[in-house]
Amino acid sequence: MTSGHAVEDMEERAVDRIVKSVVNPRPIAWVSTVDDAGRENLAPFSAYNYVCSAPPVVTFSSSMREGRFKDSAENAVATGEFAVNVVTERLIEEMDATSTPLEPGESEFELAGVERAPCEAISAPRVANAVATLECRLHDTVEVYDRLVVFGEAVHVHVTDEVKTDGEIDARKVDTVGRLGGPYYTVADPLPFERQV
Amino acid sequence: MTSGHAVEDMEERAVDRIVKSVVNPRPIAWVSTVDDAGRENLAPFSAYNYVCSAPPVVTFSSSMREGRFKDSAENAVATGEFAVNVVTERLIEEMDATSTPLEPGESEFELAGVERAPCEAISAPRVANAVATLECRLHDTVEVYDRLVVFGEAVHVHVTDEVKTDGEIDARKVDTVGRLGGPYYTVADPLPFERQV
Repeated sequence: MTSGHAVEDMEERAVDRIVKSVVNPRPIAWVSTVDDAGRENLAPFSAYNYVCSAPPVVTFSSSMREGRFKDSAENAVATGEFAVNVVTERLIEEMDATSTPLEPGESEFELAGVERAPCEAISAPRVANAVATLECRLHDTVEVYDRLVVFGEAVHVHVTDEVKTDGEIDARKVDTVGRLGGPYYTVADPLPFERQV
Repeated sequence: MTSGHAVEDMEERAVDRIVKSVVNPRPIAWVSTVDDAGRENLAPFSAYNYVCSAPPVVTFSSSMREGRFKDSAENAVATGEFAVNVVTERLIEEMDATSTPLEPGESEFELAGVERAPCEAISAPRVANAVATLECRLHDTVEVYDRLVVFGEAVHVHVTDEVKTDGEIDARKVDTVGRLGGPYYTVADPLPFERQV
């Protein structure tokens, strides 16, 4: 049976648990940035998706802690730039390790032993072993309650040959990691049932 | 090897294909609405996620065709209400069938044979066989190029007992369907590796 409840009558913890367990599977933006002093940052965000593809705009939202948004969001706003690195199964442990809260300016690349490569259009480093990276320029920000929703337009993209078929990217080869509720992750694995329309 | 390209030098089709193949897996909002004449609509959106969980706000974005956003977005703005129904594996074929473009006012519930149930706080019907539904009131809208980004706050939630353990929702029991690039779907299946932080 289904039980319906008014959100105003529920505990915050229960609402949080439901939202994070049903808005699934969530893609992961592994966001690399630098602050205005050039200090690098790398952190995963699962409140993330694309908004449009032509032009390509992606969005992620950041919570606030002690009056500051997460470093990735603060840096994206300060510099007008961020990169989204794509997390596939081989990178799951490194990505997960970069969830650790560090002081601003401390490097999650160092902490988690993530190999860097330079971006082309922006100052932030990218994850060398990601199968794809979207280099983004800040497009807009919107506040929703205590969250900052960051919109970025991809201006330069990197894609490795290993996820291509006949020179084009092939979704079946991109084994992206998704975030579920609780401590759970999943991996994108195409179903036999395909879109009919 | 990785090849990097400036987006401005690429064909729109190639950019679209990359974005939809790497921003994966995407959760699916199966959005039910009514228009201001009370005519129902049901359609899936994978440019969807939560923004914050306390208060619970979700967002989906709609493309424009011939000067109109999709009916779901137009209806959400006109009535200030929409419901997000959660798509699990048993509903994949019905959900997929509601991707078919119909004239405004024609019912995808009828077309796809989807069973309805009433919502509590809003006028739109919900999908009776969904394991969860979030009844939302319009919170805000933002235009990003030719897309409308719709933000809604969940005011009433439905969760079936079949996805609960000891009275609480259990992410491991919610086999949500995700959207990949091309014609592909996936199902959320928790990995042995769990979040460590």
